[in-house]
Amino acid sequence: MTLDEFFEIGVEVPLGSQLFDAQRIKAFASKYDPQPFHVDEEAARQSVFGGLCASGWHTAATWMKLNLATPPKPWTGPGPEPVFGPSPGITNLKWVKPVFAGETVAFSRKALGHRAIASRPGWRVLTVQAKGVESTGAPVIEFESAVLVQTAF
Amino acid sequence: MTLDEFFEIGVEVPLGSQLFDAQRIKAFASKYDPQPFHVDEEAARQSVFGGLCASGWHTAATWMKLNLATPPKPWTGPGPEPVFGPSPGITNLKWVKPVFAGETVAFSRKALGHRAIASRPGWRVLTVQAKGVESTGAPVIEFESAVLVQTAF
Repeated sequence: MTLDEFFEIGVEVPLGSQLFDAQRIKAFASKYDPQPFHVDEEAARQSVFGGLCASGWHTAATWMKLNLATPPKPWTGPGPEPVFGPSPGITNLKWVKPVFAGETVAFSRKALGHRAIASRPGWRVLTVQAKGVESTGAPVIEFESAVLVQTAF
Repeated sequence: MTLDEFFEIGVEVPLGSQLFDAQRIKAFASKYDPQPFHVDEEAARQSVFGGLCASGWHTAATWMKLNLATPPKPWTGPGPEPVFGPSPGITNLKWVKPVFAGETVAFSRKALGHRAIASRPGWRVLTVQAKGVESTGAPVIEFESAVLVQTAF
C-alpha cells in the first residue's frame, strides 16, 4: 500500500461521539479551566454564554482521545509499519461555538498531506484536520495538527 | 487606568511552575492521550522519546490552569471592570520539546494587543502569548491565545 492509502489522505474518518454532560464538563474544568461558566450552572446562566459549557481544552483533549481510539488502517507493506511519534504542534484552533451541557459532539479527522523532513531522515510530517460538530451539524471545534511519523528504518 | 495598563500589554507575567511527575503525566494521558510514551515508562524508554513525557495537551491545559490562578491587575476604573469571556481560539501552538517526567515547567503570559470587534459592540479581542520553559530555560510550549473581553456596558 502507499503512504497516501495508509494515511487515508483526503478521507474524513469518523472518530465517534462524546456526550458533554455537566459532570464531565465540571470534572475537567475544575482541574484545568475553572472559569465560572465551566464549573457552576448558576454563574454560567448569568454569564455571556447563558449556560454551562465545556472548556475548549476539554473538547480538544476529547478529540485526541477519540483520535487515538481509531487506529489507522492495517499496514500491508512493503517494509515495516510506520511508527507515529511526537507532534510538533497545532495551528488555527478555532472554538467555533460553545459546547453546552447535554450536547453530543461527533469528532472526525482528515489527513491533508505528508512530506519528508530534511533534518530528520526517515521521518515525515503528517498534517491532519481535526473537527468536532454538534448534534445540529454545526462545527464546534476545528484545528490542524502535525504529527511526525517514522516511515523508513 | 487604561486598558493597556489593565491588560499589561508587553509585560511577561510569571504564572508559577508545575512539576510534571510520572503520576500526573500518566493520570492526564490515560484519560485523554494514552500513547505508550505518555502512560508507560518501559514503552517510553523504547520509543523515539527515550523516556516518559507529558502529553502536549496536558502542558497546554496546565498553562490554562495557572493563567487563571493569576488574575489581572485590579481594575481602578473608570467604569465597570472588564469581563473576560470566551476564547475564539488559539494559533501557532508549538510543542517545542518533550516535557520528561520529573521536569518542572515555569509558565508565563504576555498580552500582545487588543482591538475592537466590529460585529460585537462593547467587546474587544485580546491576544496573549503563552509560554512554558523547562528548568534549563528552554521553551517547551508556546502558543497565541485570543480571548474576548467586554469593556463597555
